[in-house]
Amino acid sequence: MRPSADVRTRLEKAIHERFGEEIAVPGEVLHADELIRILEHRSHRQYADTPVDEALLRLLLACAFSAPSKSDLQQADVIWVAEPAKRQRIADLIPEMPWVRKAPVFLVFCGDGRRLVQISAMRAKTFANDHLDAFFNAAVDAAIVMTTFIRAATAVGLGCCPISVIRDHAQTVSAVLELPKRVFPVAGMCVGYPAQVGQISPRLPLSVTVHIDRYDDSDLAQTIDHYDRRRHAQRPYSKQRDLERHGSAALYGWSEDKARQYAQPQRVDFGRYVRAQGFKLE
Amino acid sequence: MRPSADVRTRLEKAIHERFGEEIAVPGEVLHADELIRILEHRSHRQYADTPVDEALLRLLLACAFSAPSKSDLQQADVIWVAEPAKRQRIADLIPEMPWVRKAPVFLVFCGDGRRLVQISAMRAKTFANDHLDAFFNAAVDAAIVMTTFIRAATAVGLGCCPISVIRDHAQTVSAVLELPKRVFPVAGMCVGYPAQVGQISPRLPLSVTVHIDRYDDSDLAQTIDHYDRRRHAQRPYSKQRDLERHGSAALYGWSEDKARQYAQPQRVDFGRYVRAQGFKLE
Repeated sequence: MRPSADVRTRLEKAIHERFGEEIAVPGEVLHADELIRILEHRSHRQYADTPVDEALLRLLLACAFSAPSKSDLQQADVIWVAEPAKRQRIADLIPEMPWVRKAPVFLVFCGDGRRLVQISAMRAKTFANDHLDAFFNAAVDAAIVMTTFIRAATAVGLGCCPISVIRDHAQTVSAVLELPKRVFPVAGMCVGYPAQVGQISPRLPLSVTVHIDRYDDSDLAQTIDHYDRRRHAQRPYSKQRDLERHGSAALYGWSEDKARQYAQPQRVDFGRYVRAQGFKLE
Repeated sequence: MRPSADVRTRLEKAIHERFGEEIAVPGEVLHADELIRILEHRSHRQYADTPVDEALLRLLLACAFSAPSKSDLQQADVIWVAEPAKRQRIADLIPEMPWVRKAPVFLVFCGDGRRLVQISAMRAKTFANDHLDAFFNAAVDAAIVMTTFIRAATAVGLGCCPISVIRDHAQTVSAVLELPKRVFPVAGMCVGYPAQVGQISPRLPLSVTVHIDRYDDSDLAQTIDHYDRRRHAQRPYSKQRDLERHGSAALYGWSEDKARQYAQPQRVDFGRYVRAQGFKLE
């Protein structure tokens, strides 16, 4: 279907805002409105009071679990945190993100390496794959289901905010949600009707992330400099991270922020947690 | 928006075919056509000769990289395998999947733990997170981008087939695509216009995968038995796996197939590969 001039403009505008580049919009684009929703994706942390209908949420979860799954193994779960006391216990772990407490709905997407082991036992088979791959597949399956949920929720006008920081407290979250061995949280998810339009997060140009035939980052330094300046012009950081340690940067761009963020050890006990949950990572 | 009777019927039918259960469709559903595309998701392995327009593919990749990213770290890449000789080298590793050779487009989605380390060096910061989390975040980011690509491709009428089995040959694929340290393949992706309608893969009922407040699989044995029978009635396996080792099962269901599949060691060297790529998994 030939996109209208209006649709074409929105596609071009979204791409330019996201990547800072012009991309030719092809003559024919089917369901361009869906592409626009994907291109204009933004996280939402402020929600209207409107509750989320339970039947709608179930429909969205059905969408999420219709996603493809590695070898049809279906190694993902969602824990729907409905009990206020449980939500509060999780929210208390992350006071810097009050939307975890306030969002109309809070879900936790989990990787599940347990079911396959249970099924092997039920069918009297040896489970011969107790190594890194078992953990990896479950993590990826959970991410696929989570992403599909975000797409479905966005389609019906809901806003989402993934909360990966719950993994900073993986052990406590597991205790609250009674996660058994081989089940682990990948991310929480706040869901509600957006109270604000939200902002598009600028992305690295596709010349950095899309490679033809071979990985090539020979231009990285220059491209990152340019990206930092673009972001700074478009959506500057409101404050600099760890000023006492790193001082004030003249241009505080994405690379400076991320380098500072990961100069600080984070989730150093995640490996220990994953092993304690029963995974071998050999 | 109130879904029409026709849309309501398609939603209900897709859910029933997928989950074997009735789910109440809410009175109001915005963009129900997108939910139908998600619910009716199927992998496609047979493609029409119609080529995929390069501008369209670039637009879809722009959609994919508009996906949310853990802490805005953007740890995913796509390698677009355009050179026939490179495609052939990868296809030769997986002769049982001729669609890898035949698909109009073949991409490889990668996790990228390299860029963050490069950026830390560029900004003269210590990278203080050389542990499991670095690998985990990159894998999840790649899965999020890959899933978003599938949604965008499906919207414009393309069919996809993720090829996670390339990880059975992670070292060779890395050599072919010149993946540097800390970059690793998560899955390949065949893309083209579907030559067939494709089949909906039945999923575990949501009572297994969606938990309220706490993980609970106390009914697993019974639910899996029921699911096995439903799948067998709906879409029976065309052959039984590893007959010599396991014999012929009277009811060859999903659980029997998956238990047999993982009774065979697979990707036992994936952990070694990931460590050789420079990740510490502590």
